[in-house]
Amino acid sequence: MKEIKKIAVMTSGGDAPGMNAAIRSVVRACAYYGANCVGIYRGYEGLIEGDFIELTARSVNNIINKGGTILKSARSKEFRTKEGRAKAFENLKENEIDGMVVIGGDGSFTGAVIFNEEYNFPIIGIPGTIDNDIFGTSHTIGYDTALNTAVEAIDKIRDTASSHNRLFFVEVMGRDAGFIALNAGVGAGAEEILIPEENLGLDRMLESLKKSRRTGKSSSIVVVAEGDKSGKNVYELAKYVEENLPEYDVRVSVLGHMQRGGSPSCFDRVLASRLGVKSVELLLDGQTNLMVGLNNNEVISTSIKEAITGGHSINQELLRVSDIMTT
Amino acid sequence: MKEIKKIAVMTSGGDAPGMNAAIRSVVRACAYYGANCVGIYRGYEGLIEGDFIELTARSVNNIINKGGTILKSARSKEFRTKEGRAKAFENLKENEIDGMVVIGGDGSFTGAVIFNEEYNFPIIGIPGTIDNDIFGTSHTIGYDTALNTAVEAIDKIRDTASSHNRLFFVEVMGRDAGFIALNAGVGAGAEEILIPEENLGLDRMLESLKKSRRTGKSSSIVVVAEGDKSGKNVYELAKYVEENLPEYDVRVSVLGHMQRGGSPSCFDRVLASRLGVKSVELLLDGQTNLMVGLNNNEVISTSIKEAITGGHSINQELLRVSDIMTT
Amino acid sequence: MKEIKKIAVMTSGGDAPGMNAAIRSVVRACAYYGANCVGIYRGYEGLIEGDFIELTARSVNNIINKGGTILKSARSKEFRTKEGRAKAFENLKENEIDGMVVIGGDGSFTGAVIFNEEYNFPIIGIPGTIDNDIFGTSHTIGYDTALNTAVEAIDKIRDTASSHNRLFFVEVMGRDAGFIALNAGVGAGAEEILIPEENLGLDRMLESLKKSRRTGKSSSIVVVAEGDKSGKNVYELAKYVEENLPEYDVRVSVLGHMQRGGSPSCFDRVLASRLGVKSVELLLDGQTNLMVGLNNNEVISTSIKEAITGGHSINQELLRVSDIMTT
Amino acid sequence: MKEIKKIAVMTSGGDAPGMNAAIRSVVRACAYYGANCVGIYRGYEGLIEGDFIELTARSVNNIINKGGTILKSARSKEFRTKEGRAKAFENLKENEIDGMVVIGGDGSFTGAVIFNEEYNFPIIGIPGTIDNDIFGTSHTIGYDTALNTAVEAIDKIRDTASSHNRLFFVEVMGRDAGFIALNAGVGAGAEEILIPEENLGLDRMLESLKKSRRTGKSSSIVVVAEGDKSGKNVYELAKYVEENLPEYDVRVSVLGHMQRGGSPSCFDRVLASRLGVKSVELLLDGQTNLMVGLNNNEVISTSIKEAITGGHSINQELLRVSDIMTT
Repeated sequence: MKEIKKIAVMTSGGDAPGMNAAIRSVVRACAYYGANCVGIYRGYEGLIEGDFIELTARSVNNIINKGGTILKSARSKEFRTKEGRAKAFENLKENEIDGMVVIGGDGSFTGAVIFNEEYNFPIIGIPGTIDNDIFGTSHTIGYDTALNTAVEAIDKIRDTASSHNRLFFVEVMGRDAGFIALNAGVGAGAEEILIPEENLGLDRMLESLKKSRRTGKSSSIVVVAEGDKSGKNVYELAKYVEENLPEYDVRVSVLGHMQRGGSPSCFDRVLASRLGVKSVELLLDGQTNLMVGLNNNEVISTSIKEAITGGHSINQELLRVSDIMTT
Repeated sequence: MKEIKKIAVMTSGGDAPGMNAAIRSVVRACAYYGANCVGIYRGYEGLIEGDFIELTARSVNNIINKGGTILKSARSKEFRTKEGRAKAFENLKENEIDGMVVIGGDGSFTGAVIFNEEYNFPIIGIPGTIDNDIFGTSHTIGYDTALNTAVEAIDKIRDTASSHNRLFFVEVMGRDAGFIALNAGVGAGAEEILIPEENLGLDRMLESLKKSRRTGKSSSIVVVAEGDKSGKNVYELAKYVEENLPEYDVRVSVLGHMQRGGSPSCFDRVLASRLGVKSVELLLDGQTNLMVGLNNNEVISTSIKEAITGGHSINQELLRVSDIMTT
Repeated sequence: MKEIKKIAVMTSGGDAPGMNAAIRSVVRACAYYGANCVGIYRGYEGLIEGDFIELTARSVNNIINKGGTILKSARSKEFRTKEGRAKAFENLKENEIDGMVVIGGDGSFTGAVIFNEEYNFPIIGIPGTIDNDIFGTSHTIGYDTALNTAVEAIDKIRDTASSHNRLFFVEVMGRDAGFIALNAGVGAGAEEILIPEENLGLDRMLESLKKSRRTGKSSSIVVVAEGDKSGKNVYELAKYVEENLPEYDVRVSVLGHMQRGGSPSCFDRVLASRLGVKSVELLLDGQTNLMVGLNNNEVISTSIKEAITGGHSINQELLRVSDIMTT
Repeated sequence: MKEIKKIAVMTSGGDAPGMNAAIRSVVRACAYYGANCVGIYRGYEGLIEGDFIELTARSVNNIINKGGTILKSARSKEFRTKEGRAKAFENLKENEIDGMVVIGGDGSFTGAVIFNEEYNFPIIGIPGTIDNDIFGTSHTIGYDTALNTAVEAIDKIRDTASSHNRLFFVEVMGRDAGFIALNAGVGAGAEEILIPEENLGLDRMLESLKKSRRTGKSSSIVVVAEGDKSGKNVYELAKYVEENLPEYDVRVSVLGHMQRGGSPSCFDRVLASRLGVKSVELLLDGQTNLMVGLNNNEVISTSIKEAITGGHSINQELLRVSDIMTT
């Protein structure tokens, strides 16, 4: 096995708060262990174009608290082609890079697996996405920050909802996963939470809202995941309720992309720091095709393939807590 | 002239951060000067229904930092009728209320003027609205907080915009006034700002965005006021740019109602405290039909009628600064 | 075994963000399961004085996002006496209370154990303290929020530190436990972290600071836990470094009690909601002398005695990560 | 008069949030008007050492929201000597710099005046300091942000104060000026405010605290300016009250340097943008020895000498409001 002297790091896919903290950690761990470190701009796109930058311990000063990613991110179509991946491999060889850390989500890891199969190039994945929808880690980098961002925004919305006795439908991110909706919903004290994993049925929601008003609640928040399975988007949901519960004054708010940005929470910074170190240590140890993650507050590693294919499921106990809280 | 022994306070129209601080100030000033104070729930609606509550100095403990309004707010159709106002006057008489402080915006003050003309009832207005669109005060209560909320949200959006080299259209509040858009736009370093008071023309915007990219900006934020006069809403604007500047990856974010909530800024709390005291002092001094406000950092009063009819105009110097900043 | 029809809840010891969310959860769970709920003011002090209040599902509206505790908290000397505990039991009997939920830390749980031994009164503990120093749960309520508060404050301090090339000693809370210092230190990118559990020795710190400057860091943050074992307090530490490293311009900042307040993070609100439900379910199920907690993201219960006596230990892996990050 | 082709900008003295926004504005205004721009590191110290950097419109991207100053700041002893200033002038000549913008406070402006007298070198001052103690502007850059930082910290402290029925002495910045203390005190709802400009006398404070407890306030906050004239520091004050009002449980919190950092408020960003443009326009217009500032929400300029010598006075009306609020 070849000794690892130079490691590349990239951020790929949707950006998430804490990606910079992860980059910093990879760079500092390389410096600590005497390896060189190279940053790749714009994920696989920059890899194909050879858009690289040398990173020293000092070049990542004062980025741990910054949202976004200094390496920028992108989704690359070209990397899905054989030609694209061939160019990518040429660039890695030419720059004498021996291993690569990919910070991203499902899609980015799928690319990594294919690339490794073709070129036997050592790759370690770090789960960075606000959606928390990756198997093999209890938390992805950015998820905790996105929850706080969503909850703080909903707190503000509740101020005006309760001043005007209104019902708000608030859409949070999460196309396929209801983690943000369920946790932010419980955290914000939402009266109802609609997630992709469960189809409560609209009738149940109407019942629940009626009851809520009867028991003296004068304002209400319904948190809806982007990918809710009711078959209606958040504006249609609002209209449906307005038509069926005319006593409610209904408004809609889509939190949108602000959930992807902002200074990362302490949790995400610490998580990113831990996973960054581990990813470098695994590469230096001759490992590949693994994703680092958190389990029971310990750093673990999982096969990337498993991370991609393994399912995640919503916490049933938390669903139950959510029900009880709306008593 | 009748001595003022009991003063009522209400919040009316769209809620704004700092309304609670204003209520607290009215209540404490009444206590200080030995007058009784009564809170009216839900603005003119509660006035008509006699939904009152006695307020002592202690009943407004720990509300100065809370968003929303403990007295709740509403827009009342009934108060626009003679019958509604007659009921309102009956309730005031019955409760031996001698004067009233109305915290709200244009619409609320219009109601106050009519009521005063019919019943010669002493009323002082406090400008509370996030839109800052009221003549007779340099700042309305809630405006400064809304600016900070908008700017913090746009900062987060910029994180993800610049990670992905995207162009974002961000809609902020302000149906008839571009104050929030212009100031939050300059504060957030927006590349373009579209406001109701000015019609830049879409061509100019396209030119400016092209130039911005040529000079090396890889991401951009366009801040759009709700009431922008381009004739297109924010989604249409985004689509228009996408069609004409295909090199841009365009996204939209509507900040929405979160701009109405949240803990008020220090500025809004101090402003509310000062205006609340002044409103009570004016009533006790036998004044009526005035709106208190801030001018050159001093508390002043203006005839409410003037406050309603007087125009506000956008700061041309700031428009110019905004242009220069996008160099 | 007696059926549980009425449950009391109190907050005791140092307050922590999320205590209100826990109270709300206990109250709502009682309502959900058809039990009555009574709040006890000021912990054991209020228990002895019979300072009780009936709590319904609606009386805990809009408190999930509030710092502090609506039931207030205290440390009671009288409860340490047999007489005090006798009065406490009388009050519980008189009010027909069948079980009690105590939200607090070590000290509060010790009182609970003694009381239970003497009166066989059913008690469940919920760990609420910012220090995270309780065995039987991976996270105590308030800890995550305190970390974010500390990190946000240190971020601000770093702005000025790096503008002036200064060295700051920042003291964070944690009398016996370095959890806050270690995690906030890693999260804030501190150059050194001094905690009660480890005595690095002052020489090592001097060496490290010298090296840090040599490698081009122009400003530095040293995070110190209140209970650091170097034998010096934070001011003495600063003076010591100033004398030995005259090239450094040294400043001190003690974050203090602000770490106990503030709106709880989403994590703390969700944790509090889950633990509150579980505590009520355990009481209704005839259990006693247990503390609810989180383990591997699942709600568990531990014997309160174990929770008090069981040791907690600092995460060695995180200490190592901290070292690597200062490369 | 010589044409101005190249302008230098520095930040000097204590740093303040918004300094980066001011630098950005100066740089962009230079670019807009076709002048070159040079940044000077570490204020007059870097000027003497010739520590310069060329600044283009793009080199100040994404700094408007950052605390601290990218040009760093310092207090220079050498600039107080004739030799130091001679070196400074040499460096300016050598680099063909025609005018200079100094962002700072009193001390920095005094240096500017002397330098201008000796070398007739065009200088414009921008008031950047959190203390707001400069004549010729209603607001200095950084002041509004520092107020919000202080108020948010005191809000957190009030959470724990009111949970434990405690009295907190909170020290805020302001060595010679009570602006922060008075405004943050009113904004945070403090029971007492002690400032350098007024000596209330300790007896009056005791009386007021006694009364406050009698009227049912269970917790209290006293805000103290660093430079309070009672002759006691905040710890001595706390001890004095503890001895004289044993019924109070007293704590102290010194907010410290965090007040200097953090992302600037919208107000400070807009103010900095406006003043930066004006400073460049004045230089290009052949003006010198002026400080730009804000008056009645308009940008004005004042002789720097006046700005230094002119007194500022505390707002008596606000003092009165503060009294009334503690009713």
